[in-house]
Amino acid sequence: MTITIVGIGLIGGSLALSLRGFQTRIIGVDKNQKHAEEAINLGLIDVSLPLKEATKISDLIVLAIPVDAAREILPHILDHINPDSVVVDMGSTKAGICKMVENHKNRRNFVASHPIAGTENSGPSAAFHGLFNEKIAIIAEKEKSADFALLMCEKMYKLLNMKLIYMNPEKHDMHIAYVSHLSHISSFTLGLTVLDIEKDEDQIFNMAGSGFESTVRLAKSSPEMWAPIFEQNATHLSDALGFYIDNLKKFKTIIDNKETKNAHSIMSKANEIRRILS
Amino acid sequence: MTITIVGIGLIGGSLALSLRGFQTRIIGVDKNQKHAEEAINLGLIDVSLPLKEATKISDLIVLAIPVDAAREILPHILDHINPDSVVVDMGSTKAGICKMVENHKNRRNFVASHPIAGTENSGPSAAFHGLFNEKIAIIAEKEKSADFALLMCEKMYKLLNMKLIYMNPEKHDMHIAYVSHLSHISSFTLGLTVLDIEKDEDQIFNMAGSGFESTVRLAKSSPEMWAPIFEQNATHLSDALGFYIDNLKKFKTIIDNKETKNAHSIMSKANEIRRILS
Repeated sequence: MTITIVGIGLIGGSLALSLRGFQTRIIGVDKNQKHAEEAINLGLIDVSLPLKEATKISDLIVLAIPVDAAREILPHILDHINPDSVVVDMGSTKAGICKMVENHKNRRNFVASHPIAGTENSGPSAAFHGLFNEKIAIIAEKEKSADFALLMCEKMYKLLNMKLIYMNPEKHDMHIAYVSHLSHISSFTLGLTVLDIEKDEDQIFNMAGSGFESTVRLAKSSPEMWAPIFEQNATHLSDALGFYIDNLKKFKTIIDNKETKNAHSIMSKANEIRRILS
Repeated sequence: MTITIVGIGLIGGSLALSLRGFQTRIIGVDKNQKHAEEAINLGLIDVSLPLKEATKISDLIVLAIPVDAAREILPHILDHINPDSVVVDMGSTKAGICKMVENHKNRRNFVASHPIAGTENSGPSAAFHGLFNEKIAIIAEKEKSADFALLMCEKMYKLLNMKLIYMNPEKHDMHIAYVSHLSHISSFTLGLTVLDIEKDEDQIFNMAGSGFESTVRLAKSSPEMWAPIFEQNATHLSDALGFYIDNLKKFKTIIDNKETKNAHSIMSKANEIRRILS
């Protein structure tokens, strides 16, 4: 079986690592020639080819690129895809890309998905075996995919040892905005704020052990990946961000007025998150 | 050498574990009788005693309790401390407690410190060996401590394999507000907001893998510990929180207007945090 992975970064590279050894030939497509070479040197892929050429000879094509790029190239891939081949998108927003190809004659060869896995690192060298292990993968509007396409996508995620969930694209984008995308804004802005107000870099380093390091982890994430996600999920994310800002203002008032009992009470409420995540 | 640890939770319990085996007798003081018993059962302490009794027979008394409780009991401990004994406070705010005892006749027996280490868990069962290893400990206004007191405190932190930094209490409180305390507010409020807007608890769990889980980690922290910290460090924290809210509003405007280039640019700036923390 020949699999093309478009974008051999953290996600695509980790996928390649996990699929090797299952009688697969892995073709890498990356517009960044250095990344393509690095992916070969790291043993992530067997060969690097241009997209058109790879599309012709692949049973499965997986898009692991920024969501704006995925929307741009998916219609072209579907134009040229073999009748029995499948294209799977792994992006973090689903409504836009589904809308983009809803009337494409080969829509049925496409499966819209989102594996809920990642780190703050990017590029081929960030890839590792096990990134997807025991995580959740979402498949959006599965009814629009052909049975053979859906089966191939499900088989891939099961090989990665992922748990599958099915959802419509709009719901996916709302839930992921509320939980994941909001967390990224929270962390990026925490990083920005500390860089703004703490002029002594040494003190950032010194004080980092007390919670900052993990809370700011996502602020290290790739702008190339995240800027288009925020653009495509602007409406849901803006709603979530509005609530977050309102809650922070309330917390600030509590601190300014030294309403320590109220502070205690809202933190006890926030502690609920422990139960939900456990 | 006899050491009393007041508060056998995450911090006090981990300290106890790290100091055992150095020819020490560890006395635990905890107003929570269940915690005291648990600490004995877990092998954290040799014996549990009332504070007054423990003070009389200890060479070193360490306060590992919420900052409001520490401020309350420190003067009483200093009233009764043996001339050659030392009391060390480990709280996360330093200006208030230093002010509280600045004119105490036995101020020189006291060392104000803050080990920059912790987790989101609390209680004796959260204690573990190695919590302090290779972390930073801050000692505040060391010039107000007697040489023998300072030496004993430094020796303790060196036994824990910590790196020592010296700072005045006001500076400490400002830096720690900007970096650590702000992170906690950011995370507590992220937890609150997601609980507010995401009505489907299953989706919080499902989506958590994509960054939320680590960003919200601190929202699991103990309100008993954090409410008094926020009260005592209200001024610096309110300043920091004001800047954070302003930056979030700017980010929201960028998202609302789909200014994707600007989003890219501020995230690239936030990425600087990677260099500083590495």
